[in-house]
Amino acid sequence: MRASALALASTALIAASVSASDEALRQKATEAGLQALPTELQQPANNPVTPEKIELGWMLFFDPRISASGIISCNTCHNLGTGGDDNLPTSVGHGWQKGPRNAPTVFNAVFNVAQFWDGRAEDLKEQAKGPVQAGVEMANKPEQVVTTLKSMPEYVERFGTAFSGEADPVTFDNMAKAIEAFEVTLVTPNAPFDKFMAGDDAAMTDEQKEGLSLFVDRGCASCHSGVNVGGQSYFPFGLIKRPGADILPPDDKGRFQVTHSASDEYVFRAAPLRNVAVTAPYFHSGQVWDLTQAVAVMGTAQLGTEINDEEAAKIVAFLQSLTGDVPTVQYPVLPAETRDTPRPQL
Amino acid sequence: MRASALALASTALIAASVSASDEALRQKATEAGLQALPTELQQPANNPVTPEKIELGWMLFFDPRISASGIISCNTCHNLGTGGDDNLPTSVGHGWQKGPRNAPTVFNAVFNVAQFWDGRAEDLKEQAKGPVQAGVEMANKPEQVVTTLKSMPEYVERFGTAFSGEADPVTFDNMAKAIEAFEVTLVTPNAPFDKFMAGDDAAMTDEQKEGLSLFVDRGCASCHSGVNVGGQSYFPFGLIKRPGADILPPDDKGRFQVTHSASDEYVFRAAPLRNVAVTAPYFHSGQVWDLTQAVAVMGTAQLGTEINDEEAAKIVAFLQSLTGDVPTVQYPVLPAETRDTPRPQL
Repeated sequence: MRASALALASTALIAASVSASDEALRQKATEAGLQALPTELQQPANNPVTPEKIELGWMLFFDPRISASGIISCNTCHNLGTGGDDNLPTSVGHGWQKGPRNAPTVFNAVFNVAQFWDGRAEDLKEQAKGPVQAGVEMANKPEQVVTTLKSMPEYVERFGTAFSGEADPVTFDNMAKAIEAFEVTLVTPNAPFDKFMAGDDAAMTDEQKEGLSLFVDRGCASCHSGVNVGGQSYFPFGLIKRPGADILPPDDKGRFQVTHSASDEYVFRAAPLRNVAVTAPYFHSGQVWDLTQAVAVMGTAQLGTEINDEEAAKIVAFLQSLTGDVPTVQYPVLPAETRDTPRPQL
Repeated sequence: MRASALALASTALIAASVSASDEALRQKATEAGLQALPTELQQPANNPVTPEKIELGWMLFFDPRISASGIISCNTCHNLGTGGDDNLPTSVGHGWQKGPRNAPTVFNAVFNVAQFWDGRAEDLKEQAKGPVQAGVEMANKPEQVVTTLKSMPEYVERFGTAFSGEADPVTFDNMAKAIEAFEVTLVTPNAPFDKFMAGDDAAMTDEQKEGLSLFVDRGCASCHSGVNVGGQSYFPFGLIKRPGADILPPDDKGRFQVTHSASDEYVFRAAPLRNVAVTAPYFHSGQVWDLTQAVAVMGTAQLGTEINDEEAAKIVAFLQSLTGDVPTVQYPVLPAETRDTPRPQL
């Protein structure tokens, strides 16, 4: 009975989508707050991006020696070859410890309103300092990082150039600023959705267009909107119906742990959905591997509706249209250690 | 008394070196079996190298999903950004276990007579299969690797192209062959020593030239010879005097574990010395961090002589002239997992 009603609703929606012109669909997406990816370089606050800073940040991003062990780099968990994340439920860090939450992709992270699932870091330079110090991730200390960097003449020179005019350029804060400068270059343009929004009607398939229409009609875009198709604001996970403890572990209260406000219990930043098709597993707990299942969970938990298989397939098709071009990145040749470089702590 | 005798011997050696012409020094190095790095691509046995195979191997080399955990790649321990190794005494693998021996650099490994410290792998394709299966390294199983690779259509296509004509191209052996094809490209030309050997007198400093002369005169080149300045044959570690148990742990009997011949107890492949200045720590146990100290250990253990500080400094200067140009390698965008890809085993 309920299923047939849904099937009927679904048919009506498809008809609406198919009859709507592509221009109308673009209009609809725009009104729902969805936006194409900007093509110009984003300038983060208080950190003017320069080629020298980007190049330094590129090296630091790949350098495992900013971790205590000497073997974990930013790229370990935000692997640029596998969607900007690590494909694990939660990351593995120092001593093979498992982190508390799924590693979000670094791609397009510059477009998020704030960083981490609970938004506790205002921006990428603030974020970059977190994992380096977290005991379950890189387990290092700022002063040790600075000692490591200062032990290698090439780094001293590069910090001096990237932060010229500063009396003591090799600092933990400047490390984070350089990494932020590199990360603002990690955007994935030319997704079929972006091409479509720019007027290329053929860039998305009919199924993807129907999925986009459904994405708006069903209310997904209420939370997942903006340039990053999410990542713009915070919402309770389980707004209508709380998912099971496997997906929403009771001991992780999300943004409450940042604000200590009762209204922020189990509140998380809406996941940015660009490249979501290549960044399984899903949710902050990383317990759902299948994107179709993730869409169904969202329907039940956030929208109080059952998204049937046909609709979910279309929405997933739309989500696949959010996969963009990964930037070409050379693997850096890093400065050699010297006898002053701190030894790995294993 | 002894020190002054050594100082005298040292002075005599320096005088000989300085008075010798550069051409004579080249002749001396050549007679001692030292060779410049070949510039042409090496073709390994039974594995014709093609661009398609190299490109596939490049992806596999960086792909952490050939490990059971999904987070350890060839590049984890043979990091192309840090000298082709991991700068650890012994590598950290699955479950944060520590391996038994120091990871050798992958750079120029194609020029070694055989692979691993004990030469138990005939060539690079045989070597590549070892760490993938070792419980303390990637801890995976060949059939699981094949399932993983076959789950990603792009890999299936690339194996088909690289091993065209084969009925079932996605195999563990072909994975290893592709990795070998990539690894033969990982050579480091243009070291000052190579330029000098090619006739560029100014490529090496006077100190480096004196070091090269000493390297031959003192007998270092008896074991560390050939294209890779080592890596060509096997010798007992502690030929004259066995070093301490920290450097030569009694429970690792080296090549004996391969041949079970009593004469192979504590026998190891002479370390190839190209890029040695950027691949600390040293020896199979990885317990010596300082290259000067490593040279001194060699003098006592292998040559039965004390190499004084001045001589060691010159030999180290020569060893620094063996650091070549690291090849430019792009970071690959790897195929995305599918729902058939085995989940990480943590």
